[in-house]
Amino acid sequence: MRTYIFLATVLLGAVATAAQQGAPTPELYSKQTLEEMRRLQAATLASDYAYKQTGYLSNNIGPRLSGSPQAARAVEYVADEMRKQGFEVRLQKCMVPRWVRGEERASVVEFPGMAASSTQKLTVAALGGSVATPAEGLTAEIVIVSSFEELNSLGADKVRGKIVVFNYKFDTELQASGFGLAAYGNAVQYRFGGAMAAARLGAVAVLVRSAGGSQNRLVHTGLMGYTDGVTKIPAGAITYEDADLLAWLAKDGRVRVNLVLTPQKFPDVESHNVIADLKGSERPEEIVIVSGHLDSWDLGTGAIDDASGVAMSMSALVQLRRLGLKPKRTIRFIAWMDEESGGRGSGAYFEEEKKNVANHFAAIEADLGASHPIGINFAGKSEVAAFLAPITAVLSKQGATQLQQQGGVGADITPLTRAGVPSFAPWFDQRTYFKYHHTAADTFDKIVPRELAEGASLVAVLAYGLANLEQPLPR
Amino acid sequence: MRTYIFLATVLLGAVATAAQQGAPTPELYSKQTLEEMRRLQAATLASDYAYKQTGYLSNNIGPRLSGSPQAARAVEYVADEMRKQGFEVRLQKCMVPRWVRGEERASVVEFPGMAASSTQKLTVAALGGSVATPAEGLTAEIVIVSSFEELNSLGADKVRGKIVVFNYKFDTELQASGFGLAAYGNAVQYRFGGAMAAARLGAVAVLVRSAGGSQNRLVHTGLMGYTDGVTKIPAGAITYEDADLLAWLAKDGRVRVNLVLTPQKFPDVESHNVIADLKGSERPEEIVIVSGHLDSWDLGTGAIDDASGVAMSMSALVQLRRLGLKPKRTIRFIAWMDEESGGRGSGAYFEEEKKNVANHFAAIEADLGASHPIGINFAGKSEVAAFLAPITAVLSKQGATQLQQQGGVGADITPLTRAGVPSFAPWFDQRTYFKYHHTAADTFDKIVPRELAEGASLVAVLAYGLANLEQPLPR
Repeated sequence: MRTYIFLATVLLGAVATAAQQGAPTPELYSKQTLEEMRRLQAATLASDYAYKQTGYLSNNIGPRLSGSPQAARAVEYVADEMRKQGFEVRLQKCMVPRWVRGEERASVVEFPGMAASSTQKLTVAALGGSVATPAEGLTAEIVIVSSFEELNSLGADKVRGKIVVFNYKFDTELQASGFGLAAYGNAVQYRFGGAMAAARLGAVAVLVRSAGGSQNRLVHTGLMGYTDGVTKIPAGAITYEDADLLAWLAKDGRVRVNLVLTPQKFPDVESHNVIADLKGSERPEEIVIVSGHLDSWDLGTGAIDDASGVAMSMSALVQLRRLGLKPKRTIRFIAWMDEESGGRGSGAYFEEEKKNVANHFAAIEADLGASHPIGINFAGKSEVAAFLAPITAVLSKQGATQLQQQGGVGADITPLTRAGVPSFAPWFDQRTYFKYHHTAADTFDKIVPRELAEGASLVAVLAYGLANLEQPLPR
Repeated sequence: MRTYIFLATVLLGAVATAAQQGAPTPELYSKQTLEEMRRLQAATLASDYAYKQTGYLSNNIGPRLSGSPQAARAVEYVADEMRKQGFEVRLQKCMVPRWVRGEERASVVEFPGMAASSTQKLTVAALGGSVATPAEGLTAEIVIVSSFEELNSLGADKVRGKIVVFNYKFDTELQASGFGLAAYGNAVQYRFGGAMAAARLGAVAVLVRSAGGSQNRLVHTGLMGYTDGVTKIPAGAITYEDADLLAWLAKDGRVRVNLVLTPQKFPDVESHNVIADLKGSERPEEIVIVSGHLDSWDLGTGAIDDASGVAMSMSALVQLRRLGLKPKRTIRFIAWMDEESGGRGSGAYFEEEKKNVANHFAAIEADLGASHPIGINFAGKSEVAAFLAPITAVLSKQGATQLQQQGGVGADITPLTRAGVPSFAPWFDQRTYFKYHHTAADTFDKIVPRELAEGASLVAVLAYGLANLEQPLPR
C-alpha cells in the first residue's frame, strides 16, 4: 500500500460497532442473502485457497516489482488460475515504470573515535525511483534533522553539499496501540518528500530513517518523489538502528558517509491489470469491485503487501462459484498492477471507466496486510455505515465488527472513491503490519493461515452483501 | 557468547530462590561488607558509566571481530580508559585468527514456477571461519534435512554434489518461556558441525537455518568448525524465512541455488586481553575475576554480545574505586579477546595461570546480554549456593534473586571452571537475547539503560561479596 495514506491519516470520524448501530435491518438484505453470506463465510473460513495462492505468488514467483519479469509472471499466473476456475479473464494494458535496484551500500568513513582503516557499515536500500550515485559512491558530511521545519531552519548554508539524514522516529507506541497506519502516515512524508526538500537547499543526497516499526536492522523501502525544477538527488532508507548510530556519532563531531546506490531506470514496459467478472443475475451492469495489487516491493516477496490482498479477492470469486451463489450485481475481481510505483494500473482502469462511474456500485481493496480483521474501513457518506450493519452482524462470528470511516481506503480505488463510489477495505489489526511491509521480511511465513482465511471471508461476505443489497448505497 | 553452550545445555539442577535457602548467613559476610554491597548497588544503579562505555565500544568503535582493526582499537580504548580511572593495565598477548567477511549472496536459480530470467534472492552470511566458494559462486541442487540423523539416513548417494540445507527450527516457544539458551544450544550444533557432517557425505556446501529467534529476515552468524581429514566446504547461514522458502519450493520439484561466499583467511595477528587489578587489602594473591569479551561478531556492533559485559566489568572496578571500597581479595578485570573465534585470549590466560589456579578464588563472566538480570548462574559445587544467599538478599532489591547451577557459565572462564574455580555469571532474562545476538541487529539501541545498570550492579555486588567472603568457597 502506498499513496492513499495521505488521505487516510485524516480520520473522518465515526468508529462504531455493529451493535451500536442497532440490529440488522432486514429490508436491506433478503433473508436468503443473509443465509448465503453465512454459508460463504463458513466455506471461506474452512478453505486454504487464499493461503495457497498467497504462497504461490510469494514463493514460486517472488518479489513482483512493477515492470519486472516476476510481475509479468504474476499477471500470467493469476490470469491462468482464474481461467482454470472458470472465469473469463481480461488483461487491461498499462505502461509501467521499470526501475531496477542496483548495488547499495553505505559506510561511515569519518567519525569520532574510529579506528584507523576501519568504517562502520550502514544498512541501506535505495528508495523506489531514486536516481543513482556515481558508481564509486559519493562521500559527504551528514546533517541530521527530525522534521522539514528543522531542515528549513538550518538554511542552505548548512545543508549545501551535505547528505541530509531525516531522523523522524516512527511512533512504535501508536503502532502498539493499533494505529500503525497513522504512525506510518506521519513517517512516510519524509520518505516521499525528503529528497525534494533537501535538494532545494543544495543537499547531495538524503538518507531517511525507515518508515516502519521493526527493531531488527530492517530497512524499509517505498516510493519517493521528485519534482520539476528541483535537482534529483539520490535517496536511500537506513534502519532505525543506523539512524540512531549516526545521531550518537554526530553529537561528538564531524561524521562523513560514503553512499553507493546504483539503481537504473529503463523505459516504461507494458503490463496489465488482471480482471475477471462474476456476472450479476439481476443488474449485471452494476459493479462491485474486489481487489488487491499484484506488484510488490522487491526486498521481500510481497506476501502481506499484497499477495494476500490479491488472494483474498481471488478467493471471493472462487468460493462463490464453488457454492453456486449468483450475485445480483456483477462482482469484478481486479489484480491491480503498479500500485507501489505510481498506480498506472488503477489510472488505466479509471481512464477507461470514468464515464461508467455511476455503474460502479462499490469498490473494495484489501491492501493493509493479512492479520486478523477487526472490521471494515469505508470511505463515502457516513450514512453508508447503517447499510453495513447486517454484514458486520454476520462477521461478528469472526470478531470483525468495527466500522471506521476514512478519507480513502486503498490507493488503487481512490480515483473511484473521489468520483463518489462507496469504497471499502478490510480493517486489519495493524500492530504487526508496519514492522514488515516494504522490508525484506515481508515474506510468506508472516501469513497466519486462519487470519488470512478471516480476511478472505470478510472480503467475500462484504462483496456478496453489497452485490445483493436491495437498495442503492448513499453516494 | 559461544562455546560453553555445549556444557550449559545440560542443566545440573538446583534452581532456588534466596528465600528458599534461608536467611542471610551473617558469618559469611561481615555486616560492613553487606552494608558496602548495598552502597555499591545503589551507586551502580544510579550510574550511566556502563551505558556510556557500551555506547563507545558499539558506536564509536563498532564491530570488533577478532583480528580486526576495530578489535585492536577496542583494546587500546579500554586500556586507556582503565588507566584514566587510575588502574595499572596489563595487555596480555595472544595470537588470534584473522578472518575477513567478503561478498555474500545467494539466489534460487531454479524452482517450480519461476519466471524466465528471474531468481529468488536468499539472505545469507558466511559462518565464521568458513572457506570461500569460487568467486563466481557454486551452483548445486539442494537437499533439506532437519537433523544429523536425517542427513545420515539419506546417505552419500543423495547428498554428493549437493548443497545441504540444515533446517532445524529454533524453538521460539522455549525462548519465550525464558529458556533461550537451551533453544540456542539445540540449534547451534548444526551451525558448528553442519559442514563437517555434510562434507563426509560429499556435499559441496551447507546452508544452515539461523540459530536464533528473530522473525525479521535476520541472518545469524557464528563460529563453525572443520576437522582434519574431511573436506572443508563453504558454510553459510540463511534466515528462517529463506529456509522456509526453500522447503516450500523443494516440495514441488528440483531447487538449485547459487551461492557466493568469499571470506578470506589471513595469518594470525597479535592481539591482547586487557587486564586491570583492584588489589586486595588482606589476601591480594587471591583473585576474583570480573570479565566480558571485547571481540564481537561483525554483522552488528556487538552491543549485547559483549560490549555490555565488558562495560559491566569495567564499571565494577570503577564504582569500587569511586566509593573508596577496598576488597580483601584482588578483583581482576579482564576484557577477553577472541571469545567468538576460538578463545585464544582465555587460552593464553589459562596457560599462564594454570599453576596459579588455586589462587583463583572465583571467576565471573558476563556474556549473556544486557537485559534485566533475574539472578546468578554458577558452576562448581552445589554447596556454593548457600554462600550466595546473602548476596541475592542484597540483589533482591533489583529483582535478581534466582540461582541456577550449570556445567559452565561463560566460554572464557570455562578453562578455570574445569580446573575447579567456582564460576559465576549474571543470569539475564533470555527472552530477547537470541533474537539479536550474532546478527546485524546486535546494536546499541537494544541496551535499556536501567537494565544494563542492573547487570553492572549485579556483577559489582557479586564480585565484591566474593572478594570479601569470610570463608573459602567449596571447590
